[in-house]
Amino acid sequence: MRNIKLMIKYDGTRYKGWQRQDNTDMTIQGKIEGVLSRIIKEEIEIIGSGRTDAGVHAIGQVANFKTNSTIHLSEIKKLLTTYLPDDIVVTNVEEVQERFHSRYNAISKKYMYKIWNDDVYDPFLRKYAVHIKKELNLEDIKKAITYLTGEHDFTSFTTDKSKKKSKVRTIYSIDIIKNKQLVEIIFHGDGFLYNMVRIIVGTLIEVGLGKKKPEEMKTILDGKNRKLAGDTAIAKGLYLLEVEYKDHIIE
Amino acid sequence: MRNIKLMIKYDGTRYKGWQRQDNTDMTIQGKIEGVLSRIIKEEIEIIGSGRTDAGVHAIGQVANFKTNSTIHLSEIKKLLTTYLPDDIVVTNVEEVQERFHSRYNAISKKYMYKIWNDDVYDPFLRKYAVHIKKELNLEDIKKAITYLTGEHDFTSFTTDKSKKKSKVRTIYSIDIIKNKQLVEIIFHGDGFLYNMVRIIVGTLIEVGLGKKKPEEMKTILDGKNRKLAGDTAIAKGLYLLEVEYKDHIIE
Repeated sequence: MRNIKLMIKYDGTRYKGWQRQDNTDMTIQGKIEGVLSRIIKEEIEIIGSGRTDAGVHAIGQVANFKTNSTIHLSEIKKLLTTYLPDDIVVTNVEEVQERFHSRYNAISKKYMYKIWNDDVYDPFLRKYAVHIKKELNLEDIKKAITYLTGEHDFTSFTTDKSKKKSKVRTIYSIDIIKNKQLVEIIFHGDGFLYNMVRIIVGTLIEVGLGKKKPEEMKTILDGKNRKLAGDTAIAKGLYLLEVEYKDHIIE
Repeated sequence: MRNIKLMIKYDGTRYKGWQRQDNTDMTIQGKIEGVLSRIIKEEIEIIGSGRTDAGVHAIGQVANFKTNSTIHLSEIKKLLTTYLPDDIVVTNVEEVQERFHSRYNAISKKYMYKIWNDDVYDPFLRKYAVHIKKELNLEDIKKAITYLTGEHDFTSFTTDKSKKKSKVRTIYSIDIIKNKQLVEIIFHGDGFLYNMVRIIVGTLIEVGLGKKKPEEMKTILDGKNRKLAGDTAIAKGLYLLEVEYKDHIIE
């Protein structure tokens, strides 16, 4: 069987998130499966690298699917471009080893969160960033970040309440890029728990506004209690940037 | 009388352009005048630095209006932010000399045109850039630009057919900024004729695609005939970036 890997970019504004649902066709997975099934004339099921929530965007989501069809890769890409709605774009289609699995084989992920930090909103970012009016203290945010990078139990930074699964994750880096009023926070880690990036961002915003001290990050981590961290930052500021795999799994 | 200057940023997607019309309230000028008149409780008329067409965006549009009201500037800004639709933002409100006129006193303007140059579209730019699939030859475009900068009669690059008004304008510079697949063309000139930036962009795209030679720009200018130039590039890629005034007119 052929195993086809897709790179996907989407504006999540109109969608109920990545994962297919029975009661709505407004999911990214559902839209792509619908078009692929029509193109290939088989029932196609795609496996995403992970879910994104309603309103969350993606620059580099990865998915794969299996098929017996002999359809040419360039034909798949062309037809996806033609039939997908214009807020979902498949940027790359390639054939990979049969054992490649976009979720199980992911070794790390990058997320980006955009903050528009100005007294008035930017009309072009109203669906693509959170708006924080008061000036953020980025030095304090950078100090707070030093407590969060590395291997930690992130129970305080997730809404996933399952007790069976480990909440230990490693964040390799959190970078802050400021360009005029736009602040981008880039996360790179081996994996992220449900809502983890958004809760970290919500907490960092409280630090930037002086509501929490940078050193409190340690207490919050140690407390292993969701109530200690800040609010979950709004979905529209979040982007799945990149999913990384070991080369030999793909080629 | 007080003379109030506004800086305005807007996503033009939903609008019929800047200029107020009798038959629709979907104009930028109309929206701002409506809110100002409500706030100030006077019939307010604003003067824009120039019109923008339906679908054209602005980062730094300038307008001014006169009033006898004693309302505080910060109050005007706050109420405009509250009552304007979220795709129109007044970024600055200041009091200027009574003789300041945002159209007559403008000494130069900057426009930006965005091109997404990749085989597939970018879902985040679908309303904010033109999509050109074939790779543009930027070296040829840069050569073509050398014929367009300076003082010229731009009759071939406008749809304004009035014979009375001079079609001579000076373009100080046209800069190309390429960042991955995004190409931005920045125009700086003493003034631009109706559709001039969009027709120049349409012509430069033809040069970039090899349909016109850079040297043809001279023939097109000399011919003083709209039919010689390329198509008018689509409105959604165009942004009014900045309007410049002599300092002493404002302060």
